[in-house]
Amino acid sequence: MPSTSSSHKIDVRKERSGLILLKFGGSVITFKEKPLSPNMECINHLSRIIASIDKPLIIVHGGGSFGHYWSVKYEMHTKPARYDLKGVSVVHESMIALNELLVKGLIESGAKPYSVMPSVFMHGLEPIVKRIEELEAIAVGGAVPVTFGDIVHVAEQNYSILSGDALMTILAEALLPSKVIFLVNVDGLYGDVGTQNIIREINYETYKSATFSKTTLDVTGGMNRKIEEGLKIAASGIDVVLVNGLKPQRVLNAINGCDFEGTLIRHEERRG
Amino acid sequence: MPSTSSSHKIDVRKERSGLILLKFGGSVITFKEKPLSPNMECINHLSRIIASIDKPLIIVHGGGSFGHYWSVKYEMHTKPARYDLKGVSVVHESMIALNELLVKGLIESGAKPYSVMPSVFMHGLEPIVKRIEELEAIAVGGAVPVTFGDIVHVAEQNYSILSGDALMTILAEALLPSKVIFLVNVDGLYGDVGTQNIIREINYETYKSATFSKTTLDVTGGMNRKIEEGLKIAASGIDVVLVNGLKPQRVLNAINGCDFEGTLIRHEERRG
Repeated sequence: MPSTSSSHKIDVRKERSGLILLKFGGSVITFKEKPLSPNMECINHLSRIIASIDKPLIIVHGGGSFGHYWSVKYEMHTKPARYDLKGVSVVHESMIALNELLVKGLIESGAKPYSVMPSVFMHGLEPIVKRIEELEAIAVGGAVPVTFGDIVHVAEQNYSILSGDALMTILAEALLPSKVIFLVNVDGLYGDVGTQNIIREINYETYKSATFSKTTLDVTGGMNRKIEEGLKIAASGIDVVLVNGLKPQRVLNAINGCDFEGTLIRHEERRG
Repeated sequence: MPSTSSSHKIDVRKERSGLILLKFGGSVITFKEKPLSPNMECINHLSRIIASIDKPLIIVHGGGSFGHYWSVKYEMHTKPARYDLKGVSVVHESMIALNELLVKGLIESGAKPYSVMPSVFMHGLEPIVKRIEELEAIAVGGAVPVTFGDIVHVAEQNYSILSGDALMTILAEALLPSKVIFLVNVDGLYGDVGTQNIIREINYETYKSATFSKTTLDVTGGMNRKIEEGLKIAASGIDVVLVNGLKPQRVLNAINGCDFEGTLIRHEERRG
């Protein structure tokens, strides 16, 4: 039975490079209800936190009311297809615009971001391991790679949405970071419908056996999707944390390995 | 003796895909004397021209008063070195900001731009031929790849400026486009110091033997550099054109193969 007390520590499972992989949810860095509206207050808070961290970091961010908004309007999905090229241009440009706002905020706070569109390390939907390892080299060298969900060219006239959450799984599996943290706009995973308590800790078995309240699924986001990507990452032997990105102190605690409020997806021991 | 009449046609040497490779000079899309100031009027004019072209196009742009301005301030060069990471962040972000302004202008004019940071098809300073060929596939499919001079990660803590002009040579040599056009902020290559006439046509021999007025060399741009990259490209068997990007009709004429005013760098027959 999953416990419901409100805080805990993350086990430190891997110290390969002390790399921390962070997802800034679209619902955290934008106002999802208002098209093309960044949450600059939140971006600035998170930027100050990032600037204070002295460990190798990689940030992935979502689309929120930028890319996600447009991808819905143009009916684009996480499968390669011959989408309307105007939509391709618009979605891609909106993600670059959001990325640029985040990166500017990071620079202003004293961080050293280095923006990397996903096509740098992905060939269509296929990871390029050597380029992913280069992201770690950039991070270890002191800059912070910042990548994002995007619309990527696959082949000929086919493009596909590639979600930020899927990128998290791809990067985690390739790099085996010491921590994987998803910033979301709620306190964590809520228990049964109607409860105000967040679930302190889950794993594959407890998740599949229980009934959890589900937020509305959107194209690429949604709590369900994050938990599923989190479970995949946990299956690689890494603890995954969901924490409220609108509460910066909790984010700092999670990054620093202190007690924090949120949901831990406990890793599985890696097999052979 | 180079002729000096004012207009001519480009020989159509290669119709491999009808691909046109265009450089938007930083001096054309920004006001170079004023830091971080885009020339939106020019961007909008050029965008309307691009939207009217029904051939495969790839655009490369320079940094002007965005990236170039910052790269000078942070003393960065086209050689890998352990540059100040703040400078790396700032230069990279400024190029993305300029790119985003251009891409937005292109979208508003009805073009279908697809922004591609150079690290997508370059591994440090080394071209990735398969990814460069993918740019052509994107262009043939109806979108317009837009890439740019940038600061790229090379290895560990080393980064390097990679100029838009160098990218033009790399892309031209890999893709053998039918036309290569550099948009600059003057009418073409001027003859001897003091002359008002542009040189109609040059090639390797005539360039090396003559005295031409030279504009002040900056880190990556300058007429001298463009002529040198143009000569390298011409050595691959492709005609190269320099035309004034602030005179949009000339740009359209050059793209469409009509008589235009500017300087032609005549290709050399390719050996073996």
